[in-house]
Amino acid sequence: MKKLDKICIVGLGLIGGSIGLAARERRIARKVYGLVRRRSAIAEARRGKVVDTATMDPEEAVSGAEIIIIATPISSMERIAASIKPYLTTGTIVSDVASSKRQVVQQLEKNFYPGIRFVGAHPIAGSEQRGMSAARGDLFEGTPCVVTPTPRTDKSAFLSICKFWEALGARVYLLPPQEHDRILAMVSHLPHLLAATLVNCASRTRPRSGNIFDYTGTGFRDVTRIAASPADLWVDILMSNRDEILRSLKLLSDEAKRVRRLIERADAAGIRRVLTRAGQLRRKIS
Amino acid sequence: MKKLDKICIVGLGLIGGSIGLAARERRIARKVYGLVRRRSAIAEARRGKVVDTATMDPEEAVSGAEIIIIATPISSMERIAASIKPYLTTGTIVSDVASSKRQVVQQLEKNFYPGIRFVGAHPIAGSEQRGMSAARGDLFEGTPCVVTPTPRTDKSAFLSICKFWEALGARVYLLPPQEHDRILAMVSHLPHLLAATLVNCASRTRPRSGNIFDYTGTGFRDVTRIAASPADLWVDILMSNRDEILRSLKLLSDEAKRVRRLIERADAAGIRRVLTRAGQLRRKIS
Repeated sequence: MKKLDKICIVGLGLIGGSIGLAARERRIARKVYGLVRRRSAIAEARRGKVVDTATMDPEEAVSGAEIIIIATPISSMERIAASIKPYLTTGTIVSDVASSKRQVVQQLEKNFYPGIRFVGAHPIAGSEQRGMSAARGDLFEGTPCVVTPTPRTDKSAFLSICKFWEALGARVYLLPPQEHDRILAMVSHLPHLLAATLVNCASRTRPRSGNIFDYTGTGFRDVTRIAASPADLWVDILMSNRDEILRSLKLLSDEAKRVRRLIERADAAGIRRVLTRAGQLRRKIS
Repeated sequence: MKKLDKICIVGLGLIGGSIGLAARERRIARKVYGLVRRRSAIAEARRGKVVDTATMDPEEAVSGAEIIIIATPISSMERIAASIKPYLTTGTIVSDVASSKRQVVQQLEKNFYPGIRFVGAHPIAGSEQRGMSAARGDLFEGTPCVVTPTPRTDKSAFLSICKFWEALGARVYLLPPQEHDRILAMVSHLPHLLAATLVNCASRTRPRSGNIFDYTGTGFRDVTRIAASPADLWVDILMSNRDEILRSLKLLSDEAKRVRRLIERADAAGIRRVLTRAGQLRRKIS
């Protein structure tokens, strides 16, 4: 992509900080700004060379930026959008990184319409860690990033955001917001709820000696790793995609009932088919 | 523990091969024998220095061994026990590594009783890989190993097996077979079924573009990693612990219903409590 003059990242947590590091390493813009809320984040960003300039002043951060990426928790995105709006000029591209899209895209499109060109995006990266200290310049290398245009989306802004994520190393996919939410409910939001539910459920089972978690191997630890993710970020994600999560939960529950019946009937051949199919599918995922 | 003269491992897959490597590295016995079924396994064991002597002859393998560990799939354990029995002498200790214990311990105890001292054990180690090529001498370092005595278990044989696993680096726990199965159903067998069920369920959801697995991040990959495990081994495990797996599935399903109701009611505070509790518990597991 053509080198940009200035970009601004709003919020320098794991994702925002990693965008900053990646954008600087890959020299995507002459100036990489970060808008932060706490004075300590300015010092931390400076120490980690996460952006060129970190500031708490929205005007300084966003004015003149060709692309602005909102990388805060979902529940503060609307407030932040309103706070930066006065300093944006016609043609500015605003994007975000939220893990659920229908509700967020609707809110932000409305906030910036008309004049500012909003394009929703979701880099499917992250970990159970959080915060700027966990940010990495290679976080997006080879990871999927879903860009979620709507009928209102400006085509050239959409292309710029696709190129922006490709330049950061991501594989770009294209889905309408609602479709994004249906897919991510199944492969991200539901697994997250499941991992947490399994940990809580296991904790209620008390062995005669020791603690139940003494008896866990790598399998349990892998399955439940994401249960250690920051609760507040995930409450936002789950609450903003309730309908699709409930739909996925219903599909999984139906599938689990079929498996339960196979076990009840001691249908070893049936269980073998379930495990074989899952194994073949899972081994295809790198 | 006092150095043994001879031990024999029956079956040199991931677990059996790792016992061989660990026993040799830690010089637990003067002679480490492996009983295998295929000629190619003899050559592979020799190349990998997995045991001192690999053989297809049960008499050569087991005669004179103080400890014999049966490390084959559950469904062949009974047959193998019968095939080695003629060559055992009074006082020999036989153990196993099966992931479910009530049924296996019952069968093997009956087969060897009286004279041979059987002690059930389950090292909670392994991965989605299989076979001798995946064996590692450090597989048991710091991993839990549950020893499962019954009223019939000989006390000094029981102590020898505990010391054996400690000498391989494991943390030894003690549970009756039924209690082992209840706990492992929750932290291993159920998570395994869940991972497979989630993969199969996700595969039925088709995005408008690409494949659903294109949209997975590290979270989905962690949650479903164990779904790539060998199906045949897991059919044996699941089929031999059906009652406890069904009980765990019911507990998880009840827990999931409570979570579903919180989402239906948009109870953000309730969801936060679920995630916070799970996060606190999960972060305590190393």
